Amino acid sequence: MTSPSATQDRYPYQNDPIWSRSEKTVARAAFDAALKRELQEVMQEAKQMANQINEPADLWDLEHHLTQRRKEIDRKYDYRYSQLTHVFGRLLHEQRLREEDLLGLQEDKRKLIRSFATFLSQDAA
Amino acid sequence: MTSPSATQDRYPYQNDPIWSRSEKTVARAAFDAALKRELQEVMQEAKQMANQINEPADLWDLEHHLTQRRKEIDRKYDYRYSQLTHVFGRLLHEQRLREEDLLGLQEDKRKLIRSFATFLSQDAA
Repeated sequence: MTSPSATQDRYPYQNDPIWSRSEKTVARAAFDAALKRELQEVMQEAKQMANQINEPADLWDLEHHLTQRRKEIDRKYDYRYSQLTHVFGRLLHEQRLREEDLLGLQEDKRKLIRSFATFLSQDAA
Repeated sequence: MTSPSATQDRYPYQNDPIWSRSEKTVARAAFDAALKRELQEVMQEAKQMANQINEPADLWDLEHHLTQRRKEIDRKYDYRYSQLTHVFGRLLHEQRLREEDLLGLQEDKRKLIRSFATFLSQDAA
């Protein structure tokens, strides 16, 4: 009854794309590079804020900023294949990734990613 | 029934010393100076730690350190007259105050303060 192709279609979430091995390699590299850049950015921010500390309130501003950035990064960089098109869409919208970084992903995925990036840009406008 | 002196004796906590106006002035100055010095210390720590940030883990170490120091300072600097002998005893023990900073407090209070500082030193040994 269930042909091999029907089995393949029984992917748990009907709308989730399947990631091939080569796509996973591209995705991992793009994800890691964006995360690394964002962490570098937070390191620079922290150094700058610390240099400009003049009074106690500045200290707790720095603490608060680091806590916020940590939580934001934890939420944003979610490497589950079910989440990756959203993750990449957001990174594209935030200009933390360029479309070229996603070459090697199938066009259906890149379309989803661009579409989510466009949605976020419109939403922010 | 209640003479003026009896009313005076009805201080809510029998063992809590009463602080005269001039003692309150001395206490406030000593408290504020110690707090200011400790906050300066945390500001220096933050600048040093930030300068030495090389990788993301250093960022979250800085965040954690600031959170810990903030909580510790909030707990330690409790300006309630019912707590002040403990607060000053701790600050003496931590060498954040010298006995000279407490000149102007009555001897019963200074004795309590020294006694708590001695207890903490023995406890830490």
